Amino acid sequence: MADEDIRVQASVVRDLCKIAIGLAGVPDDHAEIAAEVLVKTDLMGIETHGVARLIPYLKRLNAGLINPKPQIKILEPTPATRIVDGDHGLGAVVAMTGVIEAVRVAKEYGIGFVTCRNSNLMGACAPYVHEACERGVLFMGGTNAFPSMAPTGGKEVIIGNNPMFFGVPRRNAPHFILDIAMSAAARGKMRDAQKRGEKIPLGWAIDQYGKPTDDPKAGMEGYLLPIGEHKGYGMALVVDMFAGVLSGSGFGKGVLSMFKQWEEPQYIGHFFVAVDPDVFMPADEFDRRCNDFLGGIKGSEPWDPARPIVYPGEMAAARMEENQREGITLSSKNWEAIQAAAAGKLE
Amino acid sequence: MADEDIRVQASVVRDLCKIAIGLAGVPDDHAEIAAEVLVKTDLMGIETHGVARLIPYLKRLNAGLINPKPQIKILEPTPATRIVDGDHGLGAVVAMTGVIEAVRVAKEYGIGFVTCRNSNLMGACAPYVHEACERGVLFMGGTNAFPSMAPTGGKEVIIGNNPMFFGVPRRNAPHFILDIAMSAAARGKMRDAQKRGEKIPLGWAIDQYGKPTDDPKAGMEGYLLPIGEHKGYGMALVVDMFAGVLSGSGFGKGVLSMFKQWEEPQYIGHFFVAVDPDVFMPADEFDRRCNDFLGGIKGSEPWDPARPIVYPGEMAAARMEENQREGITLSSKNWEAIQAAAAGKLE
Repeated sequence: MADEDIRVQASVVRDLCKIAIGLAGVPDDHAEIAAEVLVKTDLMGIETHGVARLIPYLKRLNAGLINPKPQIKILEPTPATRIVDGDHGLGAVVAMTGVIEAVRVAKEYGIGFVTCRNSNLMGACAPYVHEACERGVLFMGGTNAFPSMAPTGGKEVIIGNNPMFFGVPRRNAPHFILDIAMSAAARGKMRDAQKRGEKIPLGWAIDQYGKPTDDPKAGMEGYLLPIGEHKGYGMALVVDMFAGVLSGSGFGKGVLSMFKQWEEPQYIGHFFVAVDPDVFMPADEFDRRCNDFLGGIKGSEPWDPARPIVYPGEMAAARMEENQREGITLSSKNWEAIQAAAAGKLE
Repeated sequence: MADEDIRVQASVVRDLCKIAIGLAGVPDDHAEIAAEVLVKTDLMGIETHGVARLIPYLKRLNAGLINPKPQIKILEPTPATRIVDGDHGLGAVVAMTGVIEAVRVAKEYGIGFVTCRNSNLMGACAPYVHEACERGVLFMGGTNAFPSMAPTGGKEVIIGNNPMFFGVPRRNAPHFILDIAMSAAARGKMRDAQKRGEKIPLGWAIDQYGKPTDDPKAGMEGYLLPIGEHKGYGMALVVDMFAGVLSGSGFGKGVLSMFKQWEEPQYIGHFFVAVDPDVFMPADEFDRRCNDFLGGIKGSEPWDPARPIVYPGEMAAARMEENQREGITLSSKNWEAIQAAAAGKLE
């Protein structure tokens, strides 16, 4: 059968994902969270990181590298901070536990700061930010990732693309949601450019000899560059210091790849900061100020009148609405695999 | 007299700056803080933002646009948060008040979150991060700035380059200090490239027609680009939402330029997050983990063996040591102006 894209109702995919995850030994409440995050990722239009990742997660569960029944501990070093020890459970479960704690603490103390250790890949970060925004807080955080970049001036791949993410809740408009890796572009984008026979912008990568290149093949054989050169390099380090060093999790080369390393768990760490805006001003005033600010941005003149200015989170919100209605898009191959996994037939 | 660079002992410059600021009506304790920040900026090697800025600050004080005797209010909405209202005082004084509050709160609650409103330009941010690190906390924050960039896809200059800054304290090594504006490069760098007859990298700017350019002149007539395109655009918005919208200060076009706008105060806002590492693990362990992480980065192989890998903050620490010993570098013209200002002769 040809591998073509089809659309399936989100709730249907979610139920099957939950069943498949449950079959890997994950208790019902955890399977629910993980399935919800996967499907929400697709709903937001981030299809590379959504249900397409179900099978790899199941494989790591079955290989004993993700703990299906983690004893997640929530330590409370001070009233306004938490340390979540994920016991190598599913990244979605550990991370969402941390997010919800951060929000809970922020609602009580104005600010909540949470580190998570012994987690696994949390996938796309935007769905977690969305969850925090739905609960009414400003949000920021980061997660480390296995090494994919070299330091500025260096030829050794020892730093993750360590995403940072930010959110601002809005009442009658899409939440502001920014979820960015510290690499200028994902490896997949270079692969796509190569397939299309296109060049890549200078600044995405250097070749294997350390020279700037606009050739996607040379870039893939070389090194991903961070955004803004030393700036992105520095921010990737920051994230690892908060999410890895401070959390007590792995950092640098101590963070393993989900796809390439099958000997040990990933030792991924995260950190989350939630801020309750109600502490700073009345809710109406905050909302009005957000509208003034982002309204001014959106109302500003674009180069192309057909492409008005948007802020981060708007396009995801539009996709979410459409995908909720029309179903999420997945390849027929992936859809078959999900159905098979839910029927207990992995691979 | 030719304008050449000279070196003057930091303490001498600091004393004169303090006197000059005092002559503008600023009380002794505030003048001390402001002079200290200016000189520390030069000590760290950020000469564009240090004592070279004394005269513009004095002019704004004399024009009544910086309040020499602000009644700075520190509101305490919750035990772990503070709102600093700077009453339009010197940016250094307002910001340092916020930094010290954030540290104080973090020492008690593990985390401290502070917003500042009605502030002015805080100058380079690295000296404040250094202060926080000296006090033993991890640190992050941001400040908004008058508009200098357009949104991604836009032709209207309505967003500041809104710096973010981060710090990690170290005991027997330079503090990790990252202080980055969200523009790919400062306008001054394009000016320098033009002077030297050099091209600029693509990605620094677009020309006045919105096209990518490597011509510094076209770039200066056009638009500064954010780092990582939509990524830097998004982060600049984030900073303004925390530092401006949430703080109750100006945001977007409501933030004025120190150099170009002489009708009103700047309405600048900041936000600061301080985290006490001792809450998360014993100090020795945190220090060892920082050493392991940053040691691994530093020990990794560089392209040029003569240029070993460094982390953010190392070069500033080396310059600080040298400048402390040899004096800070300033132009003879600037040195004359400082001496004149301290003798009550501004301009």
